[in-house]
Amino acid sequence: MDNKHTEISAIGEFGLIDRLTKDFPLHNDSTFKGVGDDAAVMSYGDKSVLVTTDLLLEGIHFDLRYVPLKHLGYKSAVVNFSDIYAMNGTPRQITVSLGISSRFTVEHIEELYEGIRLACDIYGVDLVGGDTSASVTGLVISITCMGDADRNEIVYRSGAKETDLICVSGDLGAAYMGLQLLERENRVAAGAKEGETFQPDFAGKEYILERQLKPEARKDIVKMLHEQGIKPTSMMDVSDGLSSELLHICKSSGVGCRIYEDKIPIDYQTAVMAEEFNLNLVMAAMNGGEDYELLFTVPLTDHEKIEKLKGVSMIGYVTKPELGAAMVTRDGSEIPVKAQGWNAFTQDK
Amino acid sequence: MDNKHTEISAIGEFGLIDRLTKDFPLHNDSTFKGVGDDAAVMSYGDKSVLVTTDLLLEGIHFDLRYVPLKHLGYKSAVVNFSDIYAMNGTPRQITVSLGISSRFTVEHIEELYEGIRLACDIYGVDLVGGDTSASVTGLVISITCMGDADRNEIVYRSGAKETDLICVSGDLGAAYMGLQLLERENRVAAGAKEGETFQPDFAGKEYILERQLKPEARKDIVKMLHEQGIKPTSMMDVSDGLSSELLHICKSSGVGCRIYEDKIPIDYQTAVMAEEFNLNLVMAAMNGGEDYELLFTVPLTDHEKIEKLKGVSMIGYVTKPELGAAMVTRDGSEIPVKAQGWNAFTQDK
Repeated sequence: MDNKHTEISAIGEFGLIDRLTKDFPLHNDSTFKGVGDDAAVMSYGDKSVLVTTDLLLEGIHFDLRYVPLKHLGYKSAVVNFSDIYAMNGTPRQITVSLGISSRFTVEHIEELYEGIRLACDIYGVDLVGGDTSASVTGLVISITCMGDADRNEIVYRSGAKETDLICVSGDLGAAYMGLQLLERENRVAAGAKEGETFQPDFAGKEYILERQLKPEARKDIVKMLHEQGIKPTSMMDVSDGLSSELLHICKSSGVGCRIYEDKIPIDYQTAVMAEEFNLNLVMAAMNGGEDYELLFTVPLTDHEKIEKLKGVSMIGYVTKPELGAAMVTRDGSEIPVKAQGWNAFTQDK
Repeated sequence: MDNKHTEISAIGEFGLIDRLTKDFPLHNDSTFKGVGDDAAVMSYGDKSVLVTTDLLLEGIHFDLRYVPLKHLGYKSAVVNFSDIYAMNGTPRQITVSLGISSRFTVEHIEELYEGIRLACDIYGVDLVGGDTSASVTGLVISITCMGDADRNEIVYRSGAKETDLICVSGDLGAAYMGLQLLERENRVAAGAKEGETFQPDFAGKEYILERQLKPEARKDIVKMLHEQGIKPTSMMDVSDGLSSELLHICKSSGVGCRIYEDKIPIDYQTAVMAEEFNLNLVMAAMNGGEDYELLFTVPLTDHEKIEKLKGVSMIGYVTKPELGAAMVTRDGSEIPVKAQGWNAFTQDK
């Protein structure tokens, strides 16, 4: 090793992944699609196998002071399923590896697994393996999910075409506001006097809390699109934030985009909380992340079909690449879309 | 959660896995074999897909004071390939997830990936995905490997039959002795006076060091068995130690076994180091672990074929279950085989 030292924060997570994976030649015919999308695709016979993996670390991705273990297990599984749905596939199997520090008992880990089991039951996914080890530090959760799809049904990030409509399911920013609320209540609880019983004030905020603690993968949207005969030209799930994902699709597809500020779907509770916290609502929706909604593009000719779908919003359109990615604000001006999504390699969000 | 607290060390890693995974019903026809072997098996068309995963944590599975990052990368990949070979399959793809603490630079991680890349090149495996994140503590490496096999060629742990011969590839205990050597030299180096250049004394010990730092998966053995028309009745790789693996096969197959102390293959360097460290050589070979050799059983009728194979030792035979698992010592007495293999949930080895 020479003496060059590039801080990881200088190139970011995606820069690091690009750099690490660029020189891996593919050896097998069965490897149909490797690094660079939500899941890898392998081809075995008539069905393609999809695989995706997520690593969740205590103190980085979750804080056990306010996340119940069962919810954590549920969410850890569901975020992987979401990646398979984002390929237009069906999740089938997961492996779960855990690194467990000495403060956890068997019952703690069973609670975590209860959540994983519940997610598996609801989504019809099989646990097929894993690895369990002690950890000298915090809890480590690594989940790999495999799924399948007919090869010509798989939707990549790279298929968006000029004039395509940009759509997103559900609403955005709620999980982020839920996290703000949990962190505030945790600070208040920590400041409560000894003997004083602290009752967190969550009334009327159930939706944003559930979006943070127990998100769902949009199996229903994938099913609905299929039933309506709509095949997206590109798709991915919103985990790092809409801005970040839009830029991924633009980069992979070699296109630009325009999205409209007033079209971004936001729930009432999210708006109320943003007001209470004095946070910019649109920025929270664009960059908050952890929404696990589906962002996808469809040909302009599907406009009427999409318009009729419940729970899907058209937020903009795909442009020539030289126009870049921008948001059209309510007053008609354009501001560039920048990835300010959650980045595990920087201290501040 | 109720107030019951079972320490994980009380039931051990396998007890914990049994307990956690016993209530996971399988939902999909494509899930042919889930938890309970070296890899899971999924069925898609004519080929079965194999998947296995390993979680490696700094301070538990490796110590960066004496393990070069490139070697660590190589080994992390190879131990997964070994699990696929142990199913009589061919590794095809891996995903690599990393949790990286702030003391690592991009170049460090590239060094780790150099080792992974080398392993992928040598074994013809494709890197197809992963996840990279900051870690507030040490380095976390989670690798999932997928492979394939014709369904009727897959070898499980559960097929051993009474009178079958028990065979093992290569030799045992060397990786464990290599670790002892590295740990000693590290202690000596730590005690060296400031300014004093410390030169570790590794001459004549290259083999045991390589067995610890850069183990290989026995692709060659799987190929050779195939060429000779030998299909093992059961097989697994020796990662936790021969004793532990023998008990796995006995339990899964519902059989007992007898192995002969004087048949256990041990390299000359391993024996010399055991002498130098005043360690019981046979115990090191039985319980040291990290050998990544293949332990397998074949029908008695394959005796002549096996005898001709280079690098394979017959070490005993399969018995009725009521006879239990025992080692026949040089003086003809029998001692029970006990799993004293490496256990990440206990402090002492």
